[in-house]
Parts: sequence; structure tokens; C-alpha cells
Amino acid sequence: MHIPTKNNIEQAYLNVKRFANHTPVLTSQSINRILGCKVFFKCENFQKVGAFKFRGATNAVFSISENEAHKGVCTHSSGNHAAALALAASLRGIRSHIVMPKNAPTIKRKAVEGYGANITSCEPTQQHRESMLEEVQKLTGATFIHPYDNFNVICGQGTASKELLEEVPDLKIILTPVGGGGLFSGTLIYAKETNPSIAVYAGEPKNADDAFRSLRDGILYPSINPNTIADGLRTSLSPLTFSIIQKYADGILTVPEALIVEAMRLIWERMKIIIEPSSAVPVAAIIQNPNIFKGKKVGVIISGGNVGLDDLPFGH
Amino acid sequence: MHIPTKNNIEQAYLNVKRFANHTPVLTSQSINRILGCKVFFKCENFQKVGAFKFRGATNAVFSISENEAHKGVCTHSSGNHAAALALAASLRGIRSHIVMPKNAPTIKRKAVEGYGANITSCEPTQQHRESMLEEVQKLTGATFIHPYDNFNVICGQGTASKELLEEVPDLKIILTPVGGGGLFSGTLIYAKETNPSIAVYAGEPKNADDAFRSLRDGILYPSINPNTIADGLRTSLSPLTFSIIQKYADGILTVPEALIVEAMRLIWERMKIIIEPSSAVPVAAIIQNPNIFKGKKVGVIISGGNVGLDDLPFGH
Repeated sequence: MHIPTKNNIEQAYLNVKRFANHTPVLTSQSINRILGCKVFFKCENFQKVGAFKFRGATNAVFSISENEAHKGVCTHSSGNHAAALALAASLRGIRSHIVMPKNAPTIKRKAVEGYGANITSCEPTQQHRESMLEEVQKLTGATFIHPYDNFNVICGQGTASKELLEEVPDLKIILTPVGGGGLFSGTLIYAKETNPSIAVYAGEPKNADDAFRSLRDGILYPSINPNTIADGLRTSLSPLTFSIIQKYADGILTVPEALIVEAMRLIWERMKIIIEPSSAVPVAAIIQNPNIFKGKKVGVIISGGNVGLDDLPFGH
Repeated sequence: MHIPTKNNIEQAYLNVKRFANHTPVLTSQSINRILGCKVFFKCENFQKVGAFKFRGATNAVFSISENEAHKGVCTHSSGNHAAALALAASLRGIRSHIVMPKNAPTIKRKAVEGYGANITSCEPTQQHRESMLEEVQKLTGATFIHPYDNFNVICGQGTASKELLEEVPDLKIILTPVGGGGLFSGTLIYAKETNPSIAVYAGEPKNADDAFRSLRDGILYPSINPNTIADGLRTSLSPLTFSIIQKYADGILTVPEALIVEAMRLIWERMKIIIEPSSAVPVAAIIQNPNIFKGKKVGVIISGGNVGLDDLPFGH
């Protein structure tokens, strides 16, 4: 398997920096006091389309050849990758074809439409998504950009860590969430090949702990009907992301659902930024494992901020 | 009346910058597209205690003499000024005495207690607040720091505009909310004495339009039982803030309640930052008056981000 290197991420950055926001790194004294360590939040919730996914999609879209580009790009997604790919394609001036499950939230469908994508609806199962995508590919010849099992996507996601480490070079630990593993993989490559002594962990919901078990057992387990509020982390690892995680990861820290909500609320209340549940998972991992982080400089990649405001998990 | 000058604000900044966060200025292309102008948001929601009020309170606390400081400071407030004064006092190592109405939200009371303030409860009327404060002053000899009818507080609030204009010198317009007028006054002084061609407006809820009417008629009208979601803007102007507003303001733009909620939601959804309803009022004013702002570089001071997450105005 062809695994990206730090050099590939540096190359990706030439594409990414032309279009992506250079997102701020925020800190909070009260959060540091509560978590018992110095946390530097790389705010990809302020990224275009509200998530780091724009980095990977942009690099992938601008890495394909003119001939390929002419036929457009396609993917199946109900989430941030769909919006990211649609926007990146529109920036290159090419077509995007997105297969979305019928039950995708209206607000997400509208966002993808707003970027000019061609949407095809399908039944909300993995099988239907894949077979519908095959049809779209046959019809259009578009290049399939997988949300994370894609060399160029992983390189794009790694650029968040490049910016973070250039701003805060002396981090001892970096934490990301892990779902399909694109962000975690890109982060691992960039951080470990910059300074192998930086520990890199991922946080994962206990209710969707396929990556944790895969790393522990050395077997790529699929994620089967996970029941977690962290909607970005319900996917399985891919062969490519799993091999990178096996090579470099210091560990995967699993956290219960209630702690994810608590961590999300903590960040909203203390930092006044909107983060989605998936982004609260690394923060929950710090709360759960104080001994790993105590007193250290910790980088946390806030993966995104796309939350339906009508359906928040904060009870009365 | 002794009106502060830009020079007083520069002096205040020597106190403020030692303790306050230098808050970021954020922009969003999608917000610019929607509002039809280039908006630079000065994010005082990221300020200590979650609001610009920390600037004024800090300057006031660090401006009193050693003899005065020895006896502490006091105020009556149920809101951000109480927390700001309590924190500023603790930073100087002096006592703070806060008169809070019995019905103040528990979360605000706890925040003030957390900063080590001495809290006295009173009935929730202006009269009771003032008479209780008099008693506290008699007992303690503490210096009363009014939330806005105070020279040093106004100078402190003006430092937000100093940072904003140093970062974005070519703003054509600056917008703040107006309640008691402390932030608006400080902003007017700093901006107009830096560059008189910068237009400075305030946004005000239609349902609490006492400042609008006062400016129009040249009479300081009290704010009587205003019914607005913008809880920071229910107060009346003071003689000092009114005289500054009369001297310098380009206008006060009033906005209906529904538009305040719409603007608040827009900022939450597009910028992924948490702003309180009062901070949405200037954004609503831009939506309401596109001709004033069209195509211009506009600075908006986001006054704060203290919102009860259990009681949000976004309906199902």
C-alpha cells in the first residue's frame, strides 16, 4: 500500500492554502484549569463548509488531471464531505455528483445544492449508496473521491496539523477524533515525521469503538450500526487509514456518550465556539484520562461545527 | 461634564492589556455575501467573563487609589458587569461586593461567587438594588463602580475599538449595540478622535428604543420595562454616556425582535461562534439597512457570548 509522507502533505498544502481558511488556534485559561493541561484548539469548525473535510476534498479535486477533471468528481455522503467536495469542485469549475441518502437532513442537502452539486437520492443503506454511485460513475465518468480511503484526501487533512505545529511547535501531544481515519492518518504522518516524540492519540466513542478494537487486535473491524451522538464518527477505517494508524498511533481513547455531551457543553459555555459532537470526543478523552495529559501542551483538532440548532443535546 | 478623550482610552489600555484577552477579529465570506458588505467581527465573546465588560471593570478597578482599593469595590448587577467587576477585583487582590437581585440566574450567581465576590441578595427592583447598594457602601466604604456611568469604565470599553482599528485601520463604519451606552460611548470617542470620517452607529432593539428616542429628541428618556430578548440592552443611558452619544453618534438603528433572533442564528450557523442576543442586534441592523452598509468595510463589536444553553430561542 502506498502511504503518504510528510512531503506529500507539504505538496498538498500548496493546493489547500489557496482556498482554505488558515483557521485560528484558540486557548482558554478556564479550560486549561478545568482540564489540567494547556490545550491549543485548532479550530476547523471555522474552516470552509464548517469542517476540516474541505482540506482533503480540495487537495483531491485539484490533484486530478485535466482529463479527469473534465468529467467531474463524485462521492456518496450525507455529511461534511459532500459539501466539501461540492465546494472544491465549484472552485475548480468542474461538476460534482453527490449520492445522498433520502433521509439526509434538508439543511445538508440545501448546502450541497447551494455549491452547485448534482444530487442523486438513494435509499439510506450502504449498499444502495454504493450501487447508486456506480451508476453515476458509469453515466458520467466522474472520478470517485472517497471521503477518507484516498491518498490525496489524507494528505489534505494532514495540513491542519502542519498549520497547528507551525504555530505551536512544542506540543507534546496531539489529539483528533477518529471515524474513517482520514484526519487521524494525516495528523499522524505530519506530526510523527516532524517530531517522533510527539504523542498522537485519537478519541473515539465507546459506542463506535471499531477503530480501538482494530488497533488492539490488528484486524480491521467494520463499524456496525454504531449508536453514538458523534455522527461524524460512525464510519469504519479503510485499509489505507488502518495501515497508517497501525504504523504511527500512540493509542485510541474511548469515551462514553454522556461525557461527549458534557465535553461539548463545556466548550460551548467556556470558549463560546460551536463544535459538533464529534469534535467533543477528544476533549472527553482528556477528561477521562487526566494522567496522560496532566500539565502538558496538547493540540486538539476541532474537526467541525455543523450542528442542527433545533436539535441540541442540552436538556432542560 | 468631564468627557473622556482618546488619550484617556490609550491610558486605560495600559491597565486593560495586562489582564484582558486580545480578542481575535473574525471574518466569514458567506456572511459577507449574505450581508452585502465586508464585516470584521471583534469577538469580545471570547473576552474574559465572556463579555467586553471586563475591559471597563478592569480599568476602573486598577484606576482607584490604594486607599480606596483597601475598602474594595461594589456594584449592583445581575449580569456581565457583576462577573467582570468580581474578576477584576480579585486580580487586584481586593474585595468586591455585588448586590444581585434574588431572581438572578443561578449560573450567573455561581460565576460571581467563583471569582470570590461578596454577594448580597435583594428584591428585583431598581429601587431595592440601589438602596441595598447604599447600605453595602455605608458598611464597607467600598467604591461604587457603575456599569457604564463611569469615566474609567467608558475608557476601558473603548479599548476594544483601539484593538479593532489597529488590526483593520480602513473601516468605514463601526457598529455596536447600545444599552446603557458604555461600549457605544467608548467606541465613539476612540473611532471619531482617530478618524472623524468613520461612521459609528449603534443597533438597539425596537422594544427598548429609549436611546434612539433620546438621541432624536435631545431628552434622556428612561428605559421603562422593555420587553426584549437582548437582556444586556434593557438599561437606560446615563448623563455621561448620553452626552458622548449626542456629541459623536451617526445614528441609532432599531430592529425588531424576530430579526434579532434571525441574526443570532445566522452568526451561530455560519460563523460557529456563540453570541448573546445583545450581540446580534448590530447584525440585525445591517440586515435591516442594507443601503447604509452596502459594499463597505464594517467593524462589528460582538459584545458577549453568555447565553443559557438550556433556554435558546431557536424553535423546533
